[in-house]
Amino acid sequence: MRAMTVREFGPPENLVGTEVDKPRPGPGEVLIKVAAAGVNRADLLQRQGNYPPPPGASDIIGMEASGTIDELGPDVDSWSPGQEVCALLAGGGYAEYVAVPAGHVLPVPDGVNLVEAAALPEVACTVLSNLKRTAHLQPGELVLLHGGASGIGTHAIQWAKELGATVAVTAGSSDKLDLCRDLGADITINYHDDDFLEVIKSHGGADVILDIIGAKYLARNVSALAKDGRLVVIGMQGGVKAEVNLGALLTKRGTIHATALRGRDLEDKAAIVADTVATTWPMIAAGRVKPVVGATFPLGEAAKAHALLDSGKVTGKVLLTL
Amino acid sequence: MRAMTVREFGPPENLVGTEVDKPRPGPGEVLIKVAAAGVNRADLLQRQGNYPPPPGASDIIGMEASGTIDELGPDVDSWSPGQEVCALLAGGGYAEYVAVPAGHVLPVPDGVNLVEAAALPEVACTVLSNLKRTAHLQPGELVLLHGGASGIGTHAIQWAKELGATVAVTAGSSDKLDLCRDLGADITINYHDDDFLEVIKSHGGADVILDIIGAKYLARNVSALAKDGRLVVIGMQGGVKAEVNLGALLTKRGTIHATALRGRDLEDKAAIVADTVATTWPMIAAGRVKPVVGATFPLGEAAKAHALLDSGKVTGKVLLTL
Repeated sequence: MRAMTVREFGPPENLVGTEVDKPRPGPGEVLIKVAAAGVNRADLLQRQGNYPPPPGASDIIGMEASGTIDELGPDVDSWSPGQEVCALLAGGGYAEYVAVPAGHVLPVPDGVNLVEAAALPEVACTVLSNLKRTAHLQPGELVLLHGGASGIGTHAIQWAKELGATVAVTAGSSDKLDLCRDLGADITINYHDDDFLEVIKSHGGADVILDIIGAKYLARNVSALAKDGRLVVIGMQGGVKAEVNLGALLTKRGTIHATALRGRDLEDKAAIVADTVATTWPMIAAGRVKPVVGATFPLGEAAKAHALLDSGKVTGKVLLTL
Repeated sequence: MRAMTVREFGPPENLVGTEVDKPRPGPGEVLIKVAAAGVNRADLLQRQGNYPPPPGASDIIGMEASGTIDELGPDVDSWSPGQEVCALLAGGGYAEYVAVPAGHVLPVPDGVNLVEAAALPEVACTVLSNLKRTAHLQPGELVLLHGGASGIGTHAIQWAKELGATVAVTAGSSDKLDLCRDLGADITINYHDDDFLEVIKSHGGADVILDIIGAKYLARNVSALAKDGRLVVIGMQGGVKAEVNLGALLTKRGTIHATALRGRDLEDKAAIVADTVATTWPMIAAGRVKPVVGATFPLGEAAKAHALLDSGKVTGKVLLTL
């Protein structure tokens, strides 16, 4: 089958089309004939050699895909060949076929086409896992989303509004903030012009912060928390090591979580997938949460997709189609 | 009535006996005739002027007491005069009488005498609040308790064992560690001799850490966490500011909480008190969790009690009797 592989760790051009063996679904797995694959920031790190796949996973890049069920492995009765699905992958998305545990597969939600569906698994499972299961965001609470125009940000805005939260976002351009506002964001902050800490303080502090910056924002994120506030760090584009003032954290009974989907075990991921289908899929079927796709490239142009995501000049998700 | 007050912020000797007005129970409050008051580390800070009471609270020191209900304020029907109780206080424990919201009062558990009962409210509510409600400690998990021979430590050991957790403790002397072992601790670490990080790592990491040291232990505490581990900082005897490695935290999907009982609002404290009576009081009534009292002084010798607690040469709780 056709796949994009990394010739050697390095720049986007090192992604090259190759013929590789078609994977076979093991016990409890299904084989998906891929229609589209989502491009994630972690893919860029993996291409550079800085984010090795978990043990046992494909070394082909790609953490999510949509497509049709092609074949069932032993002991699978939850899916049938021909069904249109999307899936959370440990790897292997940039290819014609991918094998995945049946519990990590989601149906294509009503009202979403097969290609768009590839934009959903990572953002929907990440947002649900962090805002619902980790931070327990409640209706009426204020949530601050850093990178509001990103794939995760655009989904999180809609999801949190649908829950009944007040949504604040940061982004680096007025175009991006316009998109966030269109998606429902109540408070939009251009980080070039304003200090998010001052803005959030003027609104009484954030009950939940979903952060992709890490070290560079840590002190200000802690200061921006309201009483009983929860900071969830899911990315570290601004470094990993920073000073934290535990006294400031204790005064507000704050919490700092740092989480990722990828390292979770099979059962844990399956529980998140099931919760996402139960909680978020009805929001999507009702048309109240929509996939936001910023750019689509043919699989063979994966290098262009990586360069675009890396440039920051894209909103929503970047997809590869087959 | 008689009370110990702080002549001026400073050393233990500045605690002096004074005659002050007897408090009157307001709406929703009861007046307790105090039998004994617990001495807490926060009291030492308050005596030095470093931990002002919350707005509206008595400026008399004392965050817990036992005694008999003397009088009911308006709108209280949950208690009757003459009942033996103990209570979580915002202040005012070092006195003959104290007024407290009815929802912060607990019955004296079966099998505990009225003086010993003063040793329970702070430790029981703190341990329940942090190990159950914040960290969600589960049976079979490993919990590390720093300061295992302290008031909180001695209660937490028994509580966590009763829950079915494996208990590791740190302390600074073999006598203290012997006490911890007698109370049920499975793993005892003398921090003068051994690095707790190495010991805990050899047991696969801690699912929960209850910490009173703060900055000085932060990096090692994060390193000592198991996957999905929760660090709960409730004291900062080792400073407030420290570097944290968010990458290390994310790799294990770790959580850092910092909490305190004192700043919580009335309803939140009442919920913790009710949960403590429901969860921990049956353990005490069954004789499986016992108050641990290390020293008792008459109220007039509060200065000696403070000096002893400050010296670190005491295990369990220090009480003042009237």
